[in-house]
Amino acid sequence: MTAADPAPRRGRGRPGYDQAAVLRTAVELFNRKGYDATSIGDLAKELGVTKPAIYHHVTSKEDLLRLALDDALDELTAVVGGAVEDAGSAGAYERLRGVVRRSVEVLVAHQPAVTLLLRVRGNTPVEVEALERRRWLDDRLAALVRAAVAEGALRNDIPAELVSRLLFGMVNSLAEWYRAEGTYDAAAVADALTQLAFDGLARR
Amino acid sequence: MTAADPAPRRGRGRPGYDQAAVLRTAVELFNRKGYDATSIGDLAKELGVTKPAIYHHVTSKEDLLRLALDDALDELTAVVGGAVEDAGSAGAYERLRGVVRRSVEVLVAHQPAVTLLLRVRGNTPVEVEALERRRWLDDRLAALVRAAVAEGALRNDIPAELVSRLLFGMVNSLAEWYRAEGTYDAAAVADALTQLAFDGLARR
Repeated sequence: MTAADPAPRRGRGRPGYDQAAVLRTAVELFNRKGYDATSIGDLAKELGVTKPAIYHHVTSKEDLLRLALDDALDELTAVVGGAVEDAGSAGAYERLRGVVRRSVEVLVAHQPAVTLLLRVRGNTPVEVEALERRRWLDDRLAALVRAAVAEGALRNDIPAELVSRLLFGMVNSLAEWYRAEGTYDAAAVADALTQLAFDGLARR
Repeated sequence: MTAADPAPRRGRGRPGYDQAAVLRTAVELFNRKGYDATSIGDLAKELGVTKPAIYHHVTSKEDLLRLALDDALDELTAVVGGAVEDAGSAGAYERLRGVVRRSVEVLVAHQPAVTLLLRVRGNTPVEVEALERRRWLDDRLAALVRAAVAEGALRNDIPAELVSRLLFGMVNSLAEWYRAEGTYDAAAVADALTQLAFDGLARR
């Protein structure tokens, strides 16, 4: 299911792992076992270090969760925020198409963190905050779909809310099935997805 | 995030919960906290009964997982197996369209169990077996997509493997966003999804 871990990255002058490597392994464990079932002890064991060595880099398990979710959310917020701000310079259809393509690229480049984000259930304050940021994104995306329908660029016989859910449901599904080591790179998947989706959404 | 639980069903003559009610609550907990993080003790606490009362109905936590995954897999296998067996009576396109529609209906009717199935990672023998059954389904669906492309009913400028992933990725995404108490029933979602997907997949 998971490829072999890459060799651990060494911190500058300090033997062992740097924060990025600890975080990478934590996210992999969270995705494999579930966040609630993973302890700092599990993480230390996976890395072959002591628990204090982990606490040298992070203050808590929730700290690791926040770092990972922020990684995914900051990238997605930049993509969606950019499309909202560009409202003057391009039509809603072009902006939506750009958001879909760039979302695929973010998902592929940050797949473990986005996978974790998509599984968040709101069991902790960090998760509740992440769900609020996801809702902000979903609302902006739904508004962009409505604007594209309103400007006559998308079919109007399917409710815009369902279009938004199905379109980004298809994008988000990549977190579960995309394999970086497989046949198709991010550009190939982005091409296929945007062609299928926007041909399906074309006004007829 | 989750609606209030329905009133517990009473077993015949025995006070407390029957197996179906125990299973329903177990699946809800597995989806909320993750399977690995949920104990029989958590389940007993959630139901307000003792652990022995749980063991009256099931032998283990893994037993509950197997029952839930079999529920989802048996339904999906019936849908996909039926389409494969119908090969003589209808074209691949019509069978694929039927499978997509019926998959949406199964997902809506068995949403908690399908959600659990889609999150399985293979950490236990029961999960490994479920992943094997899922792979069988995925292979049959991919073959059906290839057959529909080969008969000239679907566009052939997107690799059939990607079409299959994107199409069923969109279907599976319902597990995450569909709300039974929302505006759209299973038929409305199935209509929207099949129209969007098959218009997008039409040969041009």
